[in-house]
Amino acid sequence: MQLEVKKQILSANDQVAAQNRARLDTIGVLAINVMASPGAGKTSLILATADRLPREVRLGVIEGDLASRIDADIIASHNIPVTQINTGGSCHLDAPMIQTALDQLPLQNVRLLFIENVGNLVCPAEFELGAHLDVVVASTPEGHDKPYKYPGMFARADVVVLNKSDLLDVFDFDVAYFERGLRMVNSVAPLFVLSCRTGQGLDAWLGWLLDQLDCHAKPADASS
Amino acid sequence: MQLEVKKQILSANDQVAAQNRARLDTIGVLAINVMASPGAGKTSLILATADRLPREVRLGVIEGDLASRIDADIIASHNIPVTQINTGGSCHLDAPMIQTALDQLPLQNVRLLFIENVGNLVCPAEFELGAHLDVVVASTPEGHDKPYKYPGMFARADVVVLNKSDLLDVFDFDVAYFERGLRMVNSVAPLFVLSCRTGQGLDAWLGWLLDQLDCHAKPADASS
Repeated sequence: MQLEVKKQILSANDQVAAQNRARLDTIGVLAINVMASPGAGKTSLILATADRLPREVRLGVIEGDLASRIDADIIASHNIPVTQINTGGSCHLDAPMIQTALDQLPLQNVRLLFIENVGNLVCPAEFELGAHLDVVVASTPEGHDKPYKYPGMFARADVVVLNKSDLLDVFDFDVAYFERGLRMVNSVAPLFVLSCRTGQGLDAWLGWLLDQLDCHAKPADASS
Repeated sequence: MQLEVKKQILSANDQVAAQNRARLDTIGVLAINVMASPGAGKTSLILATADRLPREVRLGVIEGDLASRIDADIIASHNIPVTQINTGGSCHLDAPMIQTALDQLPLQNVRLLFIENVGNLVCPAEFELGAHLDVVVASTPEGHDKPYKYPGMFARADVVVLNKSDLLDVFDFDVAYFERGLRMVNSVAPLFVLSCRTGQGLDAWLGWLLDQLDCHAKPADASS
């Protein structure tokens, strides 16, 4: 009974996720689902990226938190269109939440949409939102064992960012050990070691991101 | 239907939690449920505490992770009785897992039991395990806004530890702002600001912990 109900819930979510994806594709928006532990630097990565993106790549952001508008207010203060989802008790975003949030953004002016999921290395990995790519942000203070302990999240990543690289030494963080753990569950996702605070390593991440935008062409009628 | 099923699951969990609690009380074990984000320092707090506890307070540990035995191996290398729970995909421990784990520990030789939950600031707060006290460990790299964003977890805490205090300045961490957020949802839990790495602030935490042990008397037949 329990499994049956869960199956039905997941399936309903996936249907809405497919609708979200189709809607984004129609208007030529590339959507990236950003997942991480609390405080790993999801908002910092979005802001550091926003500062360095070419002017013509217009950004939009959906912020997900159990409570508060803290992150949405920070994003808005940088003149980026943003909408906040408060999940209440829920430990992850889901596709219907994104469906509602899309209605609240000026999507016709957005080329790249960051969806900042709830800070959680487990549950968000289980729910499709309709995004094109999943970014998992790890950070040096969390320790280098995270891919071994949270394999589901790292297995799902299209790209992994290791943030707070300026503090590798402070936390005795062994990047090779981290990457071995990542490769045990994910052989393909590129890994970018960077610091949103110092800017170190951000160029490589930006290059990858711009490549993704190139691959995800705007529809002919939308680019004219 | 969905709510109905969830209600039944929670209720079954609570029944087992009550059994766990009764079992621990009978043999005079004080059990502490340690919850935190991934990498906040749950294992470090347990080890730093173990190093400073009076010899007569014998420790036991239950380690919870989605996967791996990394933390259990670290604990075992300090000659502390430990058992590892791997939850598979589940984002939290539950009472039946603890019931099984209790069978695997030499409880007759344990006075203080740490239960290290899955690294997650959301889901573990929703499941009773049968522990006597809930410790929430936050850490400075996560940022000072966590009580505002994860109110359910902080509301539930009997005590809050802010770890990695040696890095307050590095992360521009505003303790007063953090504590204001904590007090919005929890007016009573003591807050200990400490560093498991440097040992700074650990004495106060230890004092509190020994007080809890004093209050939680061993049954007459077990202390003889």
